Amino acid sequence: MQLREGTRVRIKKKSGNGTVVYEGTVMPTMSSNIVLKLDNGYNVGIHPEHVDVEVIKSPKIMKGAGKGTYELEKGPRGENDLPSLSILSTGGTIASKVDYRTGAVSPQFSTEDILEAIPELGQIANIRGKVLYSILSENMRAEYWQKLATEVYNEIKNGAEGIIVTHGTDTMGYTAAALSFMVQTPVPIVLVGSQRSSDRPSSDAAMNAIGAAKVACGDIAEVVVVMHGDTSDNFCFIHRATKVRKLHTSARDAFQSVNDRPIGKVYYDANDPGNIKFEFLSAYTRRDENELKLKGKLEEKCSLIKFYPGADPGILDFFVAQGYKGIVLEGTGLGHVSAEWIPYVERVTKSGIPVVMTSQCLYGTVCDRVYDTGRDLIRAGIIEGEDMLPETALVKLMWVLGQATDMDEVQAMMQKNIAGEISETRVR
Amino acid sequence: MQLREGTRVRIKKKSGNGTVVYEGTVMPTMSSNIVLKLDNGYNVGIHPEHVDVEVIKSPKIMKGAGKGTYELEKGPRGENDLPSLSILSTGGTIASKVDYRTGAVSPQFSTEDILEAIPELGQIANIRGKVLYSILSENMRAEYWQKLATEVYNEIKNGAEGIIVTHGTDTMGYTAAALSFMVQTPVPIVLVGSQRSSDRPSSDAAMNAIGAAKVACGDIAEVVVVMHGDTSDNFCFIHRATKVRKLHTSARDAFQSVNDRPIGKVYYDANDPGNIKFEFLSAYTRRDENELKLKGKLEEKCSLIKFYPGADPGILDFFVAQGYKGIVLEGTGLGHVSAEWIPYVERVTKSGIPVVMTSQCLYGTVCDRVYDTGRDLIRAGIIEGEDMLPETALVKLMWVLGQATDMDEVQAMMQKNIAGEISETRVR
Repeated sequence: MQLREGTRVRIKKKSGNGTVVYEGTVMPTMSSNIVLKLDNGYNVGIHPEHVDVEVIKSPKIMKGAGKGTYELEKGPRGENDLPSLSILSTGGTIASKVDYRTGAVSPQFSTEDILEAIPELGQIANIRGKVLYSILSENMRAEYWQKLATEVYNEIKNGAEGIIVTHGTDTMGYTAAALSFMVQTPVPIVLVGSQRSSDRPSSDAAMNAIGAAKVACGDIAEVVVVMHGDTSDNFCFIHRATKVRKLHTSARDAFQSVNDRPIGKVYYDANDPGNIKFEFLSAYTRRDENELKLKGKLEEKCSLIKFYPGADPGILDFFVAQGYKGIVLEGTGLGHVSAEWIPYVERVTKSGIPVVMTSQCLYGTVCDRVYDTGRDLIRAGIIEGEDMLPETALVKLMWVLGQATDMDEVQAMMQKNIAGEISETRVR
Repeated sequence: MQLREGTRVRIKKKSGNGTVVYEGTVMPTMSSNIVLKLDNGYNVGIHPEHVDVEVIKSPKIMKGAGKGTYELEKGPRGENDLPSLSILSTGGTIASKVDYRTGAVSPQFSTEDILEAIPELGQIANIRGKVLYSILSENMRAEYWQKLATEVYNEIKNGAEGIIVTHGTDTMGYTAAALSFMVQTPVPIVLVGSQRSSDRPSSDAAMNAIGAAKVACGDIAEVVVVMHGDTSDNFCFIHRATKVRKLHTSARDAFQSVNDRPIGKVYYDANDPGNIKFEFLSAYTRRDENELKLKGKLEEKCSLIKFYPGADPGILDFFVAQGYKGIVLEGTGLGHVSAEWIPYVERVTKSGIPVVMTSQCLYGTVCDRVYDTGRDLIRAGIIEGEDMLPETALVKLMWVLGQATDMDEVQAMMQKNIAGEISETRVR
């Protein structure tokens, strides 16, 4: 039996000689049970055998609100006390709190919905919103990043004192890294989303959004990701965009900084959501330290290839034949591929296509000067990706190839820290 | 100035009005400094400017010992008290302790070298050794796994009470997973290596090898990886082969169990290396619970493709055209690729080539029943990879396609736990 999420149902189930009746809204689940959110807020899992299901109300599908701008009422403390933020919405499940109240399951929510669902935001800032996209984040791509960067740039130019970008969590790290390279910013640019958590679907949406608003009003003038910190539910981490990665498919604290400490924590108190408290864990660029600049050009034709034992180096020729302009390899260990790849790599680099080496270990630094394979790769023209995440290296290569074409310049830019993507001092 | 690792040098460096003289062996390093291991065991980093270098002795390059069997003398407690282990050597840097004593830098070491370098092994077991390969682990591939599995099988059949496989760390996780599927074992099969650590290059080689020997004498009749546990230096983790992953390019505690607790810890006391102490963290298969069986057939033509925003689905057609028989995708989040991939995936699965979905999050479980993209992927015939590591899913698919060709059977085997690769109870 397929029950659509968001459907309001009454389920009768035999229990001993009697019958138990449950009424509630069908929740998404990874189990074969039906999971209902009951009116008391609790969830119940019901084995789908020998049950009698009555549909009370089918889910309302919320439509994307289209593209437009919504002015909210002023926050309760009056216009002059509160900073002006812009929320740019790209889709995703940040508004999942609305989700279960209305029974809707589509990821398409307008900024207005977010603000209605999380009225506490009004205590923190005067907020205006704009829906840019209503897409699932796996459908993000470089051309959307470019439009997003332009919109972020325009909002800041038009006086926004901080930007919040709502985004699906799947590719939030990639988008965040892209914005880091494309926009030099005097104000905070905060990406935020929510992980769908079947036990408490709404809690991280509100907490994350409130945390994001506080950070957007604050002093960190960088592109950051603000997401649920740990299971204690009392803070979000503020991650540097180029160092953050989704490291769990479903947990709320899925986002982790890799090869770097998070910039800090923003605390959350459900009883006093307007109270702003930060804890800083590492240095950051302060408000107005940098001038606003847009360097939005990207070379989309870049690929990321993960190596595995026995992998066919012919894949390199495939990408070259497709007109690709840059390749990032996710090698093993310190940055290795098998010996048979080396002549292929050399052919690619000799044809003027940069090949950047990163590691599938994710943690640690690539160093191709330790073992024979690495030294051969350097001779073949590989660019060591230092301690960059493979995903960040891919996005950076797209950006670097948008700014430079000379191979030496490309190499120099790839190995120079531009937006915190290469650690100056190593963590661990 | 390029100084070859292992070179014995005397370096004079100006310091104030005087000169400091260092004598020692050149160590591998990731910094631009020259790093020497001094005779007192300490390392020193020397800035390469204004130095006077005298080469005392060039490094001796150790040759691979070729293939052969070495019988060691009995352990000190006499033959009858100690179990019989076989060490199968495939290469890698496990013998890096020898490395700096002899000045050699090649990864090609014989089993004899390992046993000579770590005489404590003789207190734990009677050990015989065999060199199978002397290769860098990035050159490992399925055909080598098959030979290794056959050798492991034969050693056990011929009375070995435990097996140690020495292996380079880069692809140790892949090989370990492959052995898990190919060999059903009544005795422990332990993979061990050493991470090159520039500060203490030798310590994890000895500690890991001694830990591996203890585990090989013990009760865990599974394929496991025994590697340095944490910076306290007093235990190694015993990782289940299908759940372990190299998660740092250079740290000694690079190996971590993902989506599972390690099976346990084996403690190490440098003052009493023969003392055996375990701590168990999860259930395991006990000695002689399973009969010895070899199921060594693999389908090598399987690929692992990592998705990223804007990735071209034409890559699927490339692999099909190359005659590939199975594909593992490393999707985003719960197991997603962009919408334009879905018809390509469907075409592949309809042609009888299984496509397995895993997540680049690494942690957590794939679930394609939550979002639209996932449901579309299931309709397109995708096989959910549950909470398998992408690397383990690739190796398993090679093995499953060696055992079955019917798509339904392949799907059923991929989604059934065979060697601990799918968690029965979820961690986190």
